[in-house]
Amino acid sequence: MINIGVLGCGYWGPKHIRVCHEMSNAKLSAVCDLDEKKLQQVQIQYPGVKTTPRFSDFLRNNIDAVVIATPVHTHHRLAREALLNGKHVMIEKPMTSNSQEALELIELAEKRKLVLMVGHTYQYHPAVDYLKDLIGRGELGQLYGIDADRLNLGLFRPDVNVIWDLAPHDISIMLTLVNSDPIAVSARGTHHIDERVCDVAYIEVLFANGTMGHVHVSWLHPRKIRQITIVGSQKMAVYDDVSETEKIHIYDKGVAVPNEGNGNGNGNGNGHNRFSAWPPNYRYGNVVIPFISNAEPLKVECSHFIKCITEGIKPKSDGRMGLRVTSVLEAADKSLATAGQRVKLDLASMAVV
Amino acid sequence: MINIGVLGCGYWGPKHIRVCHEMSNAKLSAVCDLDEKKLQQVQIQYPGVKTTPRFSDFLRNNIDAVVIATPVHTHHRLAREALLNGKHVMIEKPMTSNSQEALELIELAEKRKLVLMVGHTYQYHPAVDYLKDLIGRGELGQLYGIDADRLNLGLFRPDVNVIWDLAPHDISIMLTLVNSDPIAVSARGTHHIDERVCDVAYIEVLFANGTMGHVHVSWLHPRKIRQITIVGSQKMAVYDDVSETEKIHIYDKGVAVPNEGNGNGNGNGNGHNRFSAWPPNYRYGNVVIPFISNAEPLKVECSHFIKCITEGIKPKSDGRMGLRVTSVLEAADKSLATAGQRVKLDLASMAVV
Amino acid sequence: MINIGVLGCGYWGPKHIRVCHEMSNAKLSAVCDLDEKKLQQVQIQYPGVKTTPRFSDFLRNNIDAVVIATPVHTHHRLAREALLNGKHVMIEKPMTSNSQEALELIELAEKRKLVLMVGHTYQYHPAVDYLKDLIGRGELGQLYGIDADRLNLGLFRPDVNVIWDLAPHDISIMLTLVNSDPIAVSARGTHHIDERVCDVAYIEVLFANGTMGHVHVSWLHPRKIRQITIVGSQKMAVYDDVSETEKIHIYDKGVAVPNEGNGNGNGNGNGHNRFSAWPPNYRYGNVVIPFISNAEPLKVECSHFIKCITEGIKPKSDGRMGLRVTSVLEAADKSLATAGQRVKLDLASMAVV
Amino acid sequence: MINIGVLGCGYWGPKHIRVCHEMSNAKLSAVCDLDEKKLQQVQIQYPGVKTTPRFSDFLRNNIDAVVIATPVHTHHRLAREALLNGKHVMIEKPMTSNSQEALELIELAEKRKLVLMVGHTYQYHPAVDYLKDLIGRGELGQLYGIDADRLNLGLFRPDVNVIWDLAPHDISIMLTLVNSDPIAVSARGTHHIDERVCDVAYIEVLFANGTMGHVHVSWLHPRKIRQITIVGSQKMAVYDDVSETEKIHIYDKGVAVPNEGNGNGNGNGNGHNRFSAWPPNYRYGNVVIPFISNAEPLKVECSHFIKCITEGIKPKSDGRMGLRVTSVLEAADKSLATAGQRVKLDLASMAVV
Repeated sequence: MINIGVLGCGYWGPKHIRVCHEMSNAKLSAVCDLDEKKLQQVQIQYPGVKTTPRFSDFLRNNIDAVVIATPVHTHHRLAREALLNGKHVMIEKPMTSNSQEALELIELAEKRKLVLMVGHTYQYHPAVDYLKDLIGRGELGQLYGIDADRLNLGLFRPDVNVIWDLAPHDISIMLTLVNSDPIAVSARGTHHIDERVCDVAYIEVLFANGTMGHVHVSWLHPRKIRQITIVGSQKMAVYDDVSETEKIHIYDKGVAVPNEGNGNGNGNGNGHNRFSAWPPNYRYGNVVIPFISNAEPLKVECSHFIKCITEGIKPKSDGRMGLRVTSVLEAADKSLATAGQRVKLDLASMAVV
Repeated sequence: MINIGVLGCGYWGPKHIRVCHEMSNAKLSAVCDLDEKKLQQVQIQYPGVKTTPRFSDFLRNNIDAVVIATPVHTHHRLAREALLNGKHVMIEKPMTSNSQEALELIELAEKRKLVLMVGHTYQYHPAVDYLKDLIGRGELGQLYGIDADRLNLGLFRPDVNVIWDLAPHDISIMLTLVNSDPIAVSARGTHHIDERVCDVAYIEVLFANGTMGHVHVSWLHPRKIRQITIVGSQKMAVYDDVSETEKIHIYDKGVAVPNEGNGNGNGNGNGHNRFSAWPPNYRYGNVVIPFISNAEPLKVECSHFIKCITEGIKPKSDGRMGLRVTSVLEAADKSLATAGQRVKLDLASMAVV
Repeated sequence: MINIGVLGCGYWGPKHIRVCHEMSNAKLSAVCDLDEKKLQQVQIQYPGVKTTPRFSDFLRNNIDAVVIATPVHTHHRLAREALLNGKHVMIEKPMTSNSQEALELIELAEKRKLVLMVGHTYQYHPAVDYLKDLIGRGELGQLYGIDADRLNLGLFRPDVNVIWDLAPHDISIMLTLVNSDPIAVSARGTHHIDERVCDVAYIEVLFANGTMGHVHVSWLHPRKIRQITIVGSQKMAVYDDVSETEKIHIYDKGVAVPNEGNGNGNGNGNGHNRFSAWPPNYRYGNVVIPFISNAEPLKVECSHFIKCITEGIKPKSDGRMGLRVTSVLEAADKSLATAGQRVKLDLASMAVV
Repeated sequence: MINIGVLGCGYWGPKHIRVCHEMSNAKLSAVCDLDEKKLQQVQIQYPGVKTTPRFSDFLRNNIDAVVIATPVHTHHRLAREALLNGKHVMIEKPMTSNSQEALELIELAEKRKLVLMVGHTYQYHPAVDYLKDLIGRGELGQLYGIDADRLNLGLFRPDVNVIWDLAPHDISIMLTLVNSDPIAVSARGTHHIDERVCDVAYIEVLFANGTMGHVHVSWLHPRKIRQITIVGSQKMAVYDDVSETEKIHIYDKGVAVPNEGNGNGNGNGNGHNRFSAWPPNYRYGNVVIPFISNAEPLKVECSHFIKCITEGIKPKSDGRMGLRVTSVLEAADKSLATAGQRVKLDLASMAVV
């Protein structure tokens, strides 16, 4: 039985509290938040759980692991303390405010032989597992591009801009699906509500294998959209996370790359045809909507965390994935500050001992 | 009765031929294309129409006006010839291969007192009229951003890249709706099928009034999407051109800009709240789907062309609009060639006498 | 503070338990179910609540009101006992197995001056309130017809057929919206899975004011559909309960009734035109999707129950509504057993003292 | 080269004229309609075609085959004349006003060895072909039920009620897909606009093999719906004819029939589980959207008609199918007139020599 303490009762905290409470092989022992009112609510719903506004008291409880769901700028400090006190740690995404902080935590956790996991929930989403497997089997062929749209009206966050709020989801999914290193990032964005915070952004992520990634995030959109489109040389797929029952569509369609060999087509009435065989050959086939289990990702994530602690295995979304995502966000911010210049990334060089 | 000749029987040509044929106050007199087979088909469907593969013969027919629907790189030469021969001219979009060519045609048409119109069909689309009026009345408030997606599998074109093929629609719509000068353009893109032609692109268009425009065009997408989202300070609108009966959704929703006056909100548990009043105030209201007439834009466009000729008035989509759109496309290509650098635009300086 | 006891931990029971637990002016005191395992689960989630498998023990607890969520055939006996023991009662829909049982309970509750409410949840659904108000204001004009579809794969019930399982929702909504007495009912149906239970049915409900109601219910449909279409002489509305954000569409469209005055139109090429003015005049206008609050109906229902108890007022969904719905279901079963004969209904005669 | 004459320029006539005109192995020779204006329009669009308002003159033209697209009550008389004059005949659906008239035409055509075809367009729709093949291969298992909805606002017809206008489509499709004789028909309906014409109807069609068919047709619905749902013991399918690209969804889902071995419950309204194995076993699998060719059904139908004439083969939608559909419509009208009584059908007995 693993004793778990949860830090923070904002947006994600209560979800972790509920899920920990429902775990059979774990026990929700303590909860910490600066807001006493929120702690009282926890007391009512979960009598027996120790609550405190002081982090030091919190750590004194009999807890094996800590879930950190506080504002991003506090992640590094709180995680560091927890690790130094011998606690296993799961940090909500994004992992830290910058890659340096992430690196420190990774090294510290490895020294102390403690589990360090980042709450990239989509790594535990059945739909993402399905897509990862689909791509792994080569069903989509070569990955041309991957497009993510995460749009809605709000919720504005006080501690980070829209990129750090929404893009971690899509970037972690892309890193998993493309399975190649991002080598350059650029971002365009603007602010409409508060001049100090970007609320709409377009991020380009170029991968080593040639796949072009693009992420559109916004807090100012009339519709709630959470969609990822994957274009492959053989098939294409759309993952609509808002749909309850038809999350994934797989399109057996594409266009045949013209054979450069017998290049002598001349196009339709002009001498400028760049294609050797014109017009290109379009292929239209069936669409398949696979059945996707509706297991709650957060529960899967939480039991994975417990499994990693008890069996001493490496989390699917470990510190390194947290670092990779943070590095992309960092680069996006840098690009945003330089009118969208492409910022080179070298994750390999960040490799930790 | 205006006698019209149509140049080109590719994709748009036959549409113009059909529409001209149905006009009551115009007569389809002659058709010209390099492909004799296509001319034969025209003969069968429209007995009596003169057809020829030679442009010189074509011009010798008794025609008052010419519709040019040939590959873009031929527009300038053919339009110039037609104007020099005293014909009124409508050119399919995009107007020319570059802004210099467009300027020449504008000056020539003005010297010769001939109508020069560009086939920006959406300028004659009831849905665009509706949106223009809606924005004009200030119903959306200040325009924050406008997002266009024009995606499908194909149709690859032999003469231009995806930007010049699809973006003219969206850029001309944006120019009309935003009603402000674009001051900078940048574009990201890539090619998957033919290394010499960009088939997926993301274009940023910044307007003088602060509106941020973004256009996503692709020939490699599993779904046919033609959508424009307009985010205003008061309301938001989505225009889905693929939908038959529900083309426009108007969302009476938004977020109140926090009052900067008493700026010292403290956010939820951290000292980093940038908002003076936290959390921001979200407003959710009704959605209205206005009834939009299903008049065929191409017919409206064609009768407008005839009206301009007979009444000597300036077309809604005149050479200047064609020039503005071409200039944005030109800037996009330039940006594409420089890893997405922002390219400044100064349309005012292009003003023609 | 009202002490509430819940009977039954099947499908609806746990929902009532959760909602009662969250009420500020009520207390979940006791839970009763034949299945000890289910009672243990309740104990774990709601420590402090008294649980027992024996109804007699259950009634001995200090409870003011009872929520009955057991199989339909037990409703009458359990509700009767509860009323005789001075408890206010809310019964899940359908109220009883037949109208006679319903009448007895109504009379008993009135004698004892106790609240008797039936759990017709949709009476507390913001969307139904909106439609009721819309129709009340005459916005739809005269109600021509109302169509309900409640379809899905499962869930088959062990105690009732598909009519008694799903149609109570739609019939109670119709009774509220049409606001007229049903005068005749007929039903067609069949069974595919178990020859003893109808799993697909089509029910016709004729109302005194001429409105034609139709209900299609099925446990064997590939899609989850919960839709009600209301056709009025002025406007039409569709209520899609499955949609999260666009539950109601109001269509400003219709057809003008031909003026019977100058009746001598001749139609198109035949002498059989029955219309005095041909063709009829179709009207197409805007569609409005009103913003509907997402308040949880079951919570609204529960607080209404408490309000009725504390303030001694008549519930929106009182015994009489329960009786009316049960009578329609009864008639439907009768029709089903006679190859769809129309069964006359005379609810007025059922009026209780 | 078959010479074709078209009778009637109402709704379907012009479509047949266009299609005949486009046929390579047929020639549109003559057109007949009472309305001279309509004939003039034909002259303008199709110079060279002979037009006349007199049927006798029409028949005197050099035509091998006649397409009859006039009001239903004239079908029998005109078709009879045409056959007596040795013309092959295609009649628009519904074939005739009653089954007796249909029988006469069938016998006459057989005596004269002439092709008699009925314009049940859906018999030539790629989607229906696909479904027929799917069911033929047994992929759906045993057919439980088939549901058709054909709804829209209008178009009211002057010569027939909504059943005779819209249901022929769905009944002909059902006859093809269920591939069993309809043995009983009942119909409910009402009129809202003109008391002499039913504008909303619900039709039940029971088939010999146990499949239950249901057709809902309406001229008074806010949405344009053309949908057919097929529920089988193995899979289910939905055919949405309004969708452009996703016409058919095949659902690999169902419920396992409980083992009847130790079943011992009895009906509804009792607490005994009627299922030997409770709860039933639901199966949820993938959804497949097959690619369906977008060939125009009317063109396929017309070339089939010509093929039948030239090769002397029996049409897919011959007189017998027309008779079968007409018989079901006849029975529906009879039921409508008797408050929905089930009307028995015995098509076998109608078998023509």
